[in-house]
Amino acid sequence: MFPASSDNYARDMSTPRTPEITLAGGPRRERSDAVRNRNRLLDVAARLVAEHGAGNVTMDQVATAAGVGKGTVFRRFGDRAGLMRALLDHAEKRFQEAFLTGPAPLGPGADPVDRLHAFGAAAIEHRLRYRDLYLAAEQPADQRYSNDPPHDLLARHVATLLVAAGVHGDVDLLTQGLLATLEVPLLHHLSTRRGMPADRLAAGWGDLVDRVTGEG
Amino acid sequence: MFPASSDNYARDMSTPRTPEITLAGGPRRERSDAVRNRNRLLDVAARLVAEHGAGNVTMDQVATAAGVGKGTVFRRFGDRAGLMRALLDHAEKRFQEAFLTGPAPLGPGADPVDRLHAFGAAAIEHRLRYRDLYLAAEQPADQRYSNDPPHDLLARHVATLLVAAGVHGDVDLLTQGLLATLEVPLLHHLSTRRGMPADRLAAGWGDLVDRVTGEG
Repeated sequence: MFPASSDNYARDMSTPRTPEITLAGGPRRERSDAVRNRNRLLDVAARLVAEHGAGNVTMDQVATAAGVGKGTVFRRFGDRAGLMRALLDHAEKRFQEAFLTGPAPLGPGADPVDRLHAFGAAAIEHRLRYRDLYLAAEQPADQRYSNDPPHDLLARHVATLLVAAGVHGDVDLLTQGLLATLEVPLLHHLSTRRGMPADRLAAGWGDLVDRVTGEG
Repeated sequence: MFPASSDNYARDMSTPRTPEITLAGGPRRERSDAVRNRNRLLDVAARLVAEHGAGNVTMDQVATAAGVGKGTVFRRFGDRAGLMRALLDHAEKRFQEAFLTGPAPLGPGADPVDRLHAFGAAAIEHRLRYRDLYLAAEQPADQRYSNDPPHDLLARHVATLLVAAGVHGDVDLLTQGLLATLEVPLLHHLSTRRGMPADRLAAGWGDLVDRVTGEG
């Protein structure tokens, strides 16, 4: 579904890693179907956004590509803005699953420094792919980072890995500093205007992680 | 003029370091007077903003504190938004002077790692003092960092110091990463909502600089 990529994250984004539990009919089965259908629409929309950019994806295109009526898409997401909000939430959740429970080295089981490297590379790929959605959804400057559970989850993850890697000092601030280097407007600027490819950005993150953890 | 502070930067912001050249009458003398009067109004406005917050400073207050008529302030800056834009530009220029030509260790003459430490501490103090102006002037997410000469100047300064400190690798990206940790919305969040005092933020910057440069 997504452009060819050798990393685990891209696979996580398009295919569930674990088979879904099938329940025997009744309301729970309906809810389960509804969730599955909703996720399928969002996976289709995510693919279209990754291929064409958020600004070029219409409700019609999502319906056609998913093989459902346009009314179904509108019923589920309200309008285009509602679809884009749901899509950002969906994409962020897939990314979270990948580093929380996905395959190593992004997921559990690898050396913490290797996991930090994989985390940055995956975050950069994810954020550049969905940059349009992130750029449009940015909070006003004076409210940014407040009441932002996805940011807080990333911070807990990075802080945990820094501690596991034996980093001493103000881990809280080091974490906020590392995450600041992955902010979408900066990645977008470096990628689009400065022409830096994603692998250079990922290498830069890895270099910074090595310096912070005292590796390399 | 500014709240008591032991660092050179605070002094630089309120008093010119070099006496102004006095010209003998004529148009150049008038222009020189105009510049001086404009800077005096901006220094007064900067003090009021630092004391009361940008949202609480009126054109009237600036006129009264500067001992001029309200009409003079309006003639010079058009309106309140024009004053705030001029003030941000003025404050940024004073900050630039401080690290480019001011006293060491922020200015030239000190060890590059010491200068990097001083730079971060001064940037944090400066940006928190004028946070209201910076937060209100932030560029839209998709255009941030493009056509931003003040950011580019800071980047050249930090990159030069990193190279002088013997840092090898992707200095360009390390520079962008370090500067990302000083973005005003993040400093504002950590300071206001997380309750981190400026000296903790400055120590965190210093720790990051030491890790990046291999010091400490």
